Amino acid sequence: MKKLINAPENVVKEALAGMAIAHADLIDVHFDPDYIVRKGAPHNKVGVISGGGSGHEPMHGGFVGYGMLDAACPGAVFTSPVPDQMLAATKAVNGGKGVLHIVKNYTGDVMNFEMAAELAAAEGIEVASVVTNDDVAVENSTWTAGRRGVGVTVLLEKIVGAAAEAGADLATCKAIAERVNAHGRSMGMALTPCTVPQAGKPGFELAEDEMEVGIGIHGEPGRRREKLAPARDIAEMLAGPILDDLPFQSGDAVLAFVNGMGGTPLIELYLMYNELARILKDRNITIARSLVGNYITSLEMAGVSFTLLRLDDEMIKLWDAPVHTPALRWGM
Amino acid sequence: MKKLINAPENVVKEALAGMAIAHADLIDVHFDPDYIVRKGAPHNKVGVISGGGSGHEPMHGGFVGYGMLDAACPGAVFTSPVPDQMLAATKAVNGGKGVLHIVKNYTGDVMNFEMAAELAAAEGIEVASVVTNDDVAVENSTWTAGRRGVGVTVLLEKIVGAAAEAGADLATCKAIAERVNAHGRSMGMALTPCTVPQAGKPGFELAEDEMEVGIGIHGEPGRRREKLAPARDIAEMLAGPILDDLPFQSGDAVLAFVNGMGGTPLIELYLMYNELARILKDRNITIARSLVGNYITSLEMAGVSFTLLRLDDEMIKLWDAPVHTPALRWGM
Repeated sequence: MKKLINAPENVVKEALAGMAIAHADLIDVHFDPDYIVRKGAPHNKVGVISGGGSGHEPMHGGFVGYGMLDAACPGAVFTSPVPDQMLAATKAVNGGKGVLHIVKNYTGDVMNFEMAAELAAAEGIEVASVVTNDDVAVENSTWTAGRRGVGVTVLLEKIVGAAAEAGADLATCKAIAERVNAHGRSMGMALTPCTVPQAGKPGFELAEDEMEVGIGIHGEPGRRREKLAPARDIAEMLAGPILDDLPFQSGDAVLAFVNGMGGTPLIELYLMYNELARILKDRNITIARSLVGNYITSLEMAGVSFTLLRLDDEMIKLWDAPVHTPALRWGM
Repeated sequence: MKKLINAPENVVKEALAGMAIAHADLIDVHFDPDYIVRKGAPHNKVGVISGGGSGHEPMHGGFVGYGMLDAACPGAVFTSPVPDQMLAATKAVNGGKGVLHIVKNYTGDVMNFEMAAELAAAEGIEVASVVTNDDVAVENSTWTAGRRGVGVTVLLEKIVGAAAEAGADLATCKAIAERVNAHGRSMGMALTPCTVPQAGKPGFELAEDEMEVGIGIHGEPGRRREKLAPARDIAEMLAGPILDDLPFQSGDAVLAFVNGMGGTPLIELYLMYNELARILKDRNITIARSLVGNYITSLEMAGVSFTLLRLDDEMIKLWDAPVHTPALRWGM
């Protein structure tokens, strides 16, 4: 296992310590229970928190800051955080206007966030939850009943974070979050596997001429394994199911998000974006906003995911609103 | 070779086409000769341009925009751009106040930028040049007489770009650039090699338990190949030579830049940043600013480089100034 680590069991805590120093202007990191919290929390607004297994960086800790998340709960690598973390984070960001939990649809995450919400409610904190399930690849998966939550989560955290920052109440934040999830679809693929530090070996194997289409962000199986193909064919394999599922239609304006799985050179992501743009143009779908880069990753996995979000005017306004986090920043 | 590409010979152009669409608000891409140019060029200021082989993205094209570069010339992967590109870019950004060429110290880059500068001068354009050579690993290398230019280039482009944006004249821009280069030092290491698309196989090989310390950004050999070590030891191997070389001293304020080589998970970069912060604290060196992420890469290579820049008040002010490019953005 080739990794820049000291001991597998300390990776998450040592990375959190580094984040705390690198972004001391934006965040504080609390240990035991572990959570990343926006500087100066609680703020006089709806608190927005998320969390999930580590190994998907910058998601979610890199999205804590002005205009996005108030806290993030990192679990062990590819392992759900525990209710104690979520409860502590919920209490830390509760400014009296309630707290929204943004949960990716994985069994452990959903169960633990539900438990944390109950515990928080018992302490008098109003909690609402939204579960993202945008991955069109499979209907159920290794770690999921129903579709997996993937790329839309990033976009949703930005958009809802902006709404909360602007003073939207908890019900409104939840409604916007549900609208974003309802209008977004994703699918990904992998060229190579990745290795969880505590496992010490790759989670699966792919031959030199194979790829996994429809892969999950933990390397869980997708739709099919097949021979490596040119970028334009891979783009069709991902975009087709996404477009047909919502379905996206001629005249739609979308946010096009091309995401690297962690080990993919940026030059390949822009090349894939070029393919996606061509496909969308052919269908008379306008790219109104875009995001290209590594935002929801699977350690060092090489691969790409596409996410399309059908935009409305309010979503565009919220997307464009200022944000200042370690991994997303604009307007300030 | 596992890559998201169509044909090896088209990778650079297709990625540029993707960039042009994704960042149409910031840049235009000119083909034949290929260069990326800031929207609305020329501007009424010193033009700042750079360039080099592709495969190091986001450097340099990702740094074209307000407050940084006016143009970037991408060569084939790991291959110097040609004088025609540099000349065309120089003419495109010349607003009458002269143009600064930022050149990494590789034989081809230096020679071709010199030729372009002469051609531009013959057309009446005032050109000044700065050559970065911050890599302390080796005194000469495969592709270099003298030290290689690496991580400092990113910091220099930001700082000089801010100076030019604020109206500094060409001589002042050149002087600031030289000061940044003189006060910055870098060193990198690799866990894995990378594959140039047109080569089709890795540029070198490393056994499962080996790493290359002092590697160049094209995979050229470093100081030594040795057994894989814990992150804290690797951090010492990189930081030690950097600190001793300038030398950095107790009481210094630095910009600490932890850079991923392209295939390194962000969680490992933050872990390495934590190690670097500890080393600097032990030496009573203050981290006044920091940057953590993949900014000067080697395709999908896994590894890390450290860059330290001794800061003065003017550099801090210029670093903090607003910037809006595809890969670096703040303050606007």
